Amino acid sequence: LVEYLITGCGGFVGSHYLDYLHNTGLTEEVVGIGTTAPLNAPNDLRFSFIEINLLDAKKLGESIKKIRPRFCIHLASMSSVAASWVYPDKSFNNNTNIFLNLLEAVRHYSPETRILSVGSSEQYGEVSLQEESFMESDRLAPQSPYAVAKCSQEMIGQVYVESYELDIVMTRSFNHIGPRQSEHFAIAGFSRLFSQANNNGDELLVLPTGNIQVIRDFIDVRDVVSAYEAILRSAHPGAIYNVCSGRGVALANVITKLSEISGVRVEIETEPSRLRPSENNIVVGSHALLTNKLGWEPTIPLDQSLRDILKYWQAN
Amino acid sequence: LVEYLITGCGGFVGSHYLDYLHNTGLTEEVVGIGTTAPLNAPNDLRFSFIEINLLDAKKLGESIKKIRPRFCIHLASMSSVAASWVYPDKSFNNNTNIFLNLLEAVRHYSPETRILSVGSSEQYGEVSLQEESFMESDRLAPQSPYAVAKCSQEMIGQVYVESYELDIVMTRSFNHIGPRQSEHFAIAGFSRLFSQANNNGDELLVLPTGNIQVIRDFIDVRDVVSAYEAILRSAHPGAIYNVCSGRGVALANVITKLSEISGVRVEIETEPSRLRPSENNIVVGSHALLTNKLGWEPTIPLDQSLRDILKYWQAN
Repeated sequence: LVEYLITGCGGFVGSHYLDYLHNTGLTEEVVGIGTTAPLNAPNDLRFSFIEINLLDAKKLGESIKKIRPRFCIHLASMSSVAASWVYPDKSFNNNTNIFLNLLEAVRHYSPETRILSVGSSEQYGEVSLQEESFMESDRLAPQSPYAVAKCSQEMIGQVYVESYELDIVMTRSFNHIGPRQSEHFAIAGFSRLFSQANNNGDELLVLPTGNIQVIRDFIDVRDVVSAYEAILRSAHPGAIYNVCSGRGVALANVITKLSEISGVRVEIETEPSRLRPSENNIVVGSHALLTNKLGWEPTIPLDQSLRDILKYWQAN
Repeated sequence: LVEYLITGCGGFVGSHYLDYLHNTGLTEEVVGIGTTAPLNAPNDLRFSFIEINLLDAKKLGESIKKIRPRFCIHLASMSSVAASWVYPDKSFNNNTNIFLNLLEAVRHYSPETRILSVGSSEQYGEVSLQEESFMESDRLAPQSPYAVAKCSQEMIGQVYVESYELDIVMTRSFNHIGPRQSEHFAIAGFSRLFSQANNNGDELLVLPTGNIQVIRDFIDVRDVVSAYEAILRSAHPGAIYNVCSGRGVALANVITKLSEISGVRVEIETEPSRLRPSENNIVVGSHALLTNKLGWEPTIPLDQSLRDILKYWQAN
């Protein structure tokens, strides 16, 4: 019996999910699907990888028919807000459409499978300084093509829960950080440059940035995985949970911390090409629902995450 | 100069839009695009048709670059809720994705064009008996793949207005009825059978139906067109208006009226294949905003619509 099917398992969160399952001593089978195999599949996990582009509905259906997993962790996503401005159609195809393909495959061939659908804090849109952090009951006001695609994914999930009684649980996940994240994401990219400066013995780093005044809720990817497990194991079908640290930090402050930890002084250089057509100033979440209902809490402080990320880039 | 570009102009609303423009004595050029040419383009309208599948972003872009219309009436849509349950992916492609292609084309090649984006009452979801009719400020709760696709279309529209200052005005249009509507839609299909029975001299019609207890807000397609014109001419960019009659009628009552007008007795036969995985019981809108802000009101009573529809099917 296959316990876990992980889509997009070659990605950032996927690699940490595999670590997590390995660390729990899971002995049942894990299957990964996606366009790239994970580089770090732990040796003694019973893991196999099938190369499938989730846009290929037919091939996906055939695989789901064979695998019939107990859990499907749907991590596959084109998750960059920046890229969604350049390729809005791709953002839709690789969020909304692949999810629809997955749901149709599960509905037809494996309706007992519990699916974890990953949404985004970007769905909320902008919040003003005076307001509280985002609650799951707040109104959605997506401000980018990616945010719209994730709202669509969530709405489709709701429709399939209500109309077909599919077993889907959902998240709105805030900004992930951690080792192995692509340098295209702000903190990973900055950390890589700080580590490089450090390795080169440079005392000053001139750092090209976009808007670093934005305040985000950065959560360590390992906390993300433990939250997903809590939701997967205990949430009701159709439930939606924020996955966040609950604390807002300006990107500028993260850069200051990276500078302090690495011992490299920094000079900011704003690059117009890194500014986006529109950007939410403050995106901070509340995990009160997840804590109160399912007992989950984040455990990794921001400084620890940043130290681990710098260490990762120093080694790579 | 091209005054109007009409997408999906070979469809039901498109044909009536052409009639409307003809009746107003429009002398500027009208271009229709879509996969099927209109059958009834009025002779003395300066009209030309270009065959384009809006999924073909490249061809669409090239056309928009050439045409640069003042107004774009975006009617192209796979607009059947029933079909969206069978082909959810097609429903997305032919609502959300084609709209995205249109916006990208206009953004790049004709940013001055004002676009009318047609949404649906289905975006609201179910309303209980006690509640009032839907207002534009109500929360959306889509209950079908089609409804989700139309919510996505609207959200994308908002993003492009706010981020790129595109000039988009939007509707949430309730159930259209009128001559030339495809028989796949309930009232058109029923009317066709009543007219057939009438032409054959049958006194009794055994009518296969789905759930006819549902209450809908049926608006004559000619009132729809006049509402679209009012919105196109006077709404602010980003505005969203309900387009509806403001009155709720059970499908069962419409059948009774069709029976009375045609003089053919009717016996209902519920067909399980016509029942849907989920269905909103009551969908009735308020056009207070459109009336108060832009002075539009519906003018065609339901009985008149039904008489015209029966007449159309008797002749076809």
